[in-house]
Formats: sequence, C-alpha cells, structure tokens
Amino acid sequence: MPHITLNTDEPGIRGLLRFRPETARPLNDLAEVLLRGESTLSRGERELIATYVSGLNECRFCTSSHAAFAAAQLPEGMALVERVRADPDGAPVSAKLKALLGIAAAVQQGGRQVGDHHIAAARAEGATDVEIHDTVLIAAAFCMFNRYVDGLATFAPEDPAAYATAADRVIAYGYTTTSPVAEPRG
Amino acid sequence: MPHITLNTDEPGIRGLLRFRPETARPLNDLAEVLLRGESTLSRGERELIATYVSGLNECRFCTSSHAAFAAAQLPEGMALVERVRADPDGAPVSAKLKALLGIAAAVQQGGRQVGDHHIAAARAEGATDVEIHDTVLIAAAFCMFNRYVDGLATFAPEDPAAYATAADRVIAYGYTTTSPVAEPRG
Repeated sequence: MPHITLNTDEPGIRGLLRFRPETARPLNDLAEVLLRGESTLSRGERELIATYVSGLNECRFCTSSHAAFAAAQLPEGMALVERVRADPDGAPVSAKLKALLGIAAAVQQGGRQVGDHHIAAARAEGATDVEIHDTVLIAAAFCMFNRYVDGLATFAPEDPAAYATAADRVIAYGYTTTSPVAEPRG
Repeated sequence: MPHITLNTDEPGIRGLLRFRPETARPLNDLAEVLLRGESTLSRGERELIATYVSGLNECRFCTSSHAAFAAAQLPEGMALVERVRADPDGAPVSAKLKALLGIAAAVQQGGRQVGDHHIAAARAEGATDVEIHDTVLIAAAFCMFNRYVDGLATFAPEDPAAYATAADRVIAYGYTTTSPVAEPRG
C-alpha cells in the first residue's frame, strides 16, 4: 500500500503524477526529451539504458515498464532486453552502447564513480559529447524516478499485460500526453 | 576538467544547463516547483533537505550551492545549515522537519529503504501527505542532480562568494529565469 493516500488506483509513478500535477509536468517533460526527443541514440537504446539502471536500483515498476517500452521499440524485442539486463557486456548490442551502459552503471553507484576510463571507452567507440551527456542524465534521472516510485511504496502490477498496454500508450502518445482513449482497467 | 566539452566556463550544473537547453528547461522547472513553488514547507526548509541529501551524496557543488540558498532563506542562516548537516537529530529545527530529514536520508540510500516507521514518525509530528510526497521527491531529485553534476565531472568553485552570488540570483529570480543583469566573472 502506498505511503500516502493517492487519488487514483493507477500503479507506480502514474498514481504519483496524478496526485501532484505541479511536479508531474516537469517530470513528464524530462522523460519525453530524454527518451523520445531528437537524438543520435534510438528510442529503443535510450529505453534500454533506463531499464538497465532501474534494474540495478531494483525498482520493479520502472524496470517492467521501461523493459516493455524498450522491447516494443527494438527489432529484437524482449529477448534483447533480457540479455542486456543479465549480461550487458555479452549482449548483442553495439560496442558504443555497451560503453554507454558502463557509464550508466557507474552513475547508478554515484556520480563520482564515473572515471576517465569509462568516458575514454565510450569515446573509443565513437560516442559523442551529447550521447555521453544524455547517458549520464538518463541514468541519473532513473535514480530519481526509481526512488520516487519505491520511496512512496507505490503498487507494481504483476501482470505483464499491464506494462504492454502502457507501452502501446507511451509509443503512440509519448510521456506528456494523456491517452485520449479510456483504458481497460483491472 | 569536465568529461565533455562545455560551451561556457560556468561551474557545476550551470555549465550543463547551458550545454543542453532541451533538458535544462524541465530540470529548472522541477527545481522551481519543488524548492520555490507553493508549499506548507518554507523555501528555507526545502533547501535544507536539498543540502542535506547533496551532502550525503558528497556532491560539493550542489551542497555548497543549496547550503547558501538555504542559509539566505532561514533566519538562523548558515550556522543552522551546518548544524543540520552535522547532526540533524540534534539540530534546533522542528520535530516535523527532523522526521522529514529522516525520510530524505532513507531515500538517498534507495527508495526501498523508506519504511513505515519513517512515515509514521513524520505523521506523528503533523506531516501531511503532500509534505511527505515532496520530501521524497526533493530527496530523489537531488540523487539525480548530484549524479548529473559529478557524473560529468563539472567544476565546483572553492570560493564561498561564488555560491553567495548564486544565492542572490536564485532568491531574486528563481531557478527558471536567467538573471537580467550581467554577473561579475572570475
């Protein structure tokens, strides 16, 4: 049960966004620009970074949500998401993405854990300044979102279908627009 | 030296905000609503929470910045900020604020570290749902800001005057408005 009384039964961050619209707006805007805005990293790659960090933080709602969003936007689907989560170095992703995942893992531990060698490894695989910047900020932002969702003890559905439905909505409408269609509940 | 090439020599998060205006906007908007928006917690109290979490994350730029912003908005000034940082339980702040600082410290460790006893302690001192929500989100947000600032190895000035100048600007203009007046540099 959530630590505070929410005004809907929506799970995870969605109930919190509904509870406090004043903070929901910048949080949604941040997710939209980081995960869906113009970038040389694909939306699937950025959702993979978000999923990986959420897994390291053991946030079930965010991990399940962004795994579904990543899978729906990667040709290799959920099989690749699961391989990256289990063994990023051995997963069949680009060497550049592996190096960026290494930066993200360091950020999850703490900002001062990002060393020159993490950055050099990413640059050696062609990562740009903006890609490095965005990887650090995506990882840092999920250290916020994960703490927000779990720090208030929100509900995380068990049913994978709940996350697949959310993926359809995010891919169609993004993070800042509420679905114009009523969703089936329960 | 920062891990990426910035387009100004502004320190800490300010150089990063200048580098990537697309992400700067929601980040500034989030800081503005959390730390300066309408709330039953004073601006000084909210800056104290931000300072305390930044200290736990050992982020020198954010700790020095928000300590200056808190001190400038609390009647007891920097002496109180330093007492809260050193010993929150023994500091001369309200029992409610002590309990909220306890929640913030748990969030800094990880979202799942916030227990029912942290929440019960805050409620016993009169904390509302919105105050608990905002405390969790301020603490979570500084786990992001601190990682962003240090994960990209930005510069943190040694000179306290730099932070006092920033405090004057934030108090006068907020987090979302650039000062209309050129600032002295160096």
